[in-house]
Amino acid sequence: MTIQVFGHKSPDTDSTGSPIAWAWYLTHKGTPAKPVLLGEPNTEAAFVLRHWGLEKPEIIRGVEAGAPVVIVDTNNPAELPADINKADIRAIIDHHKLVGGLETKGPIDITVRPLACTATIMADLMGDDLAAAPRSVKGAMLSCIVSDTLEFRSPTTTPHDKAVAEALARDLGVDLHDLAAAMFEAKSDVSAFSDAELLRMDSKEYTVAGKELRVSVLETTAPKVVLDRKASLMDSMVGVAQEDGADQVLLFVVDILREEATLLVPNALVKEMAEKSFGVTVSGDTVVLPGVMSRKKQIIPALTL
Amino acid sequence: MTIQVFGHKSPDTDSTGSPIAWAWYLTHKGTPAKPVLLGEPNTEAAFVLRHWGLEKPEIIRGVEAGAPVVIVDTNNPAELPADINKADIRAIIDHHKLVGGLETKGPIDITVRPLACTATIMADLMGDDLAAAPRSVKGAMLSCIVSDTLEFRSPTTTPHDKAVAEALARDLGVDLHDLAAAMFEAKSDVSAFSDAELLRMDSKEYTVAGKELRVSVLETTAPKVVLDRKASLMDSMVGVAQEDGADQVLLFVVDILREEATLLVPNALVKEMAEKSFGVTVSGDTVVLPGVMSRKKQIIPALTL
Repeated sequence: MTIQVFGHKSPDTDSTGSPIAWAWYLTHKGTPAKPVLLGEPNTEAAFVLRHWGLEKPEIIRGVEAGAPVVIVDTNNPAELPADINKADIRAIIDHHKLVGGLETKGPIDITVRPLACTATIMADLMGDDLAAAPRSVKGAMLSCIVSDTLEFRSPTTTPHDKAVAEALARDLGVDLHDLAAAMFEAKSDVSAFSDAELLRMDSKEYTVAGKELRVSVLETTAPKVVLDRKASLMDSMVGVAQEDGADQVLLFVVDILREEATLLVPNALVKEMAEKSFGVTVSGDTVVLPGVMSRKKQIIPALTL
Repeated sequence: MTIQVFGHKSPDTDSTGSPIAWAWYLTHKGTPAKPVLLGEPNTEAAFVLRHWGLEKPEIIRGVEAGAPVVIVDTNNPAELPADINKADIRAIIDHHKLVGGLETKGPIDITVRPLACTATIMADLMGDDLAAAPRSVKGAMLSCIVSDTLEFRSPTTTPHDKAVAEALARDLGVDLHDLAAAMFEAKSDVSAFSDAELLRMDSKEYTVAGKELRVSVLETTAPKVVLDRKASLMDSMVGVAQEDGADQVLLFVVDILREEATLLVPNALVKEMAEKSFGVTVSGDTVVLPGVMSRKKQIIPALTL
């Protein structure tokens, strides 16, 4: 039975490209596998698919009991199909903190590393086999690392992520900076999305001081396009929070090129949280957080109330 | 702050030797670490420590909040200190199924592989650095693999476990079979233990068809010594189950040399479970299960009611 390889429910470049890379590798090693998606890829991931001539993987809405699957780029059941523990989980490859909740029937391959990108871990696991990967797979892996590291600007970047990406770019004969610029431009085109879609596009749930937070990040080279919509985005936060069972949505608009985040401040709760968490003084309905680019490394560890 | 490396609460050879090996490796790579134990090592593990001239690691009863730790040979919070999630878990190296429940503050190194032994995974992770390990550390690692594979008899054994063990034995210039015989003899000396201690020595909790089971395994080259105590062992099961909040204790006495298990059958529940799980007919208070040696691979997957 063909193994389905997938990432999380909001497919960004890593959760789209890494399943493609790992499905290629499994198949190459004699275990038939195919990449699938748990949702529509974001605009950057869609660009990456087109750019490297890759077909968009099938989007699935759930997994069948007993179906063999490999989970990449998450270990969080909340980001996976509700019936995930009924599947036959064969392997997990991830770079996020362990949240608990996934269970397997027997011992399986689990590889979690504190690296910026799942594709970097895969390059290590593939070893010499990576050389045999087609151009499209190597390109997808390079794009994953460029995306997750924001072209090495994000503080999640490790020297190893950078070295693997640079080796892939050399091998492919592509200009990494040009690729990054085209990807970030694609990611920044959010014109087609409603406010609610923007708030949920790259969003994770966390509990801070008893408050259920939906912490959303929009990485863009054109923050003005998003910030021009701030009034209606703040209006939409109320409904999104209610529908998703959260107390508050936090939206951080990350300016990739200026290396800073702008947090929308719709109410006194977010104001207090911003001031206590980031040591800033908020006046008005936004606050700029210089140097803040990473939810994992900078936003979540700082959040307090 | 020195990292504490430990396995599970009932230290067998792998949960005693693997922490020693990994603490050596971390220290060798520049991160000070020390092995500790969460309980008294079993007779085989104690033999292994003496045999390779290793000091018995300190036994700790809990971990302090924020203390840096590495967990090996388990990912099950039930087999770890109650306050484990308050520690700063730096890495997990294991070969058991994922049960969920451990949480980390950030992304860490997690390596789980479907191999027979934690030490085999460590040999892979150490790579060329293994050559620099002292004789005692290599010996401990060899003993871990011999123990967990029952000298390659257990169906959990993979060709890779065997290859790593044989390479270590060659490197050390020791006769693997002689080492195994001495280790199994040490493990078989259970004269010093009370019935309740024997029932809890190598025991894991599972829920099968709504019943809370304590599934205990005694691996021995002298099953007669244990089976001669079967009447008082069956008497003790009632109290042990009660104290530990279980419905039933199952004791499998594994004859390492004959490659079979004898299950004690104290009552109708265990009789029914044995017949349904293993397709045998039980008459009397024991039943022999030919070929059964592994709780993980053969007993747990079969158990039904």
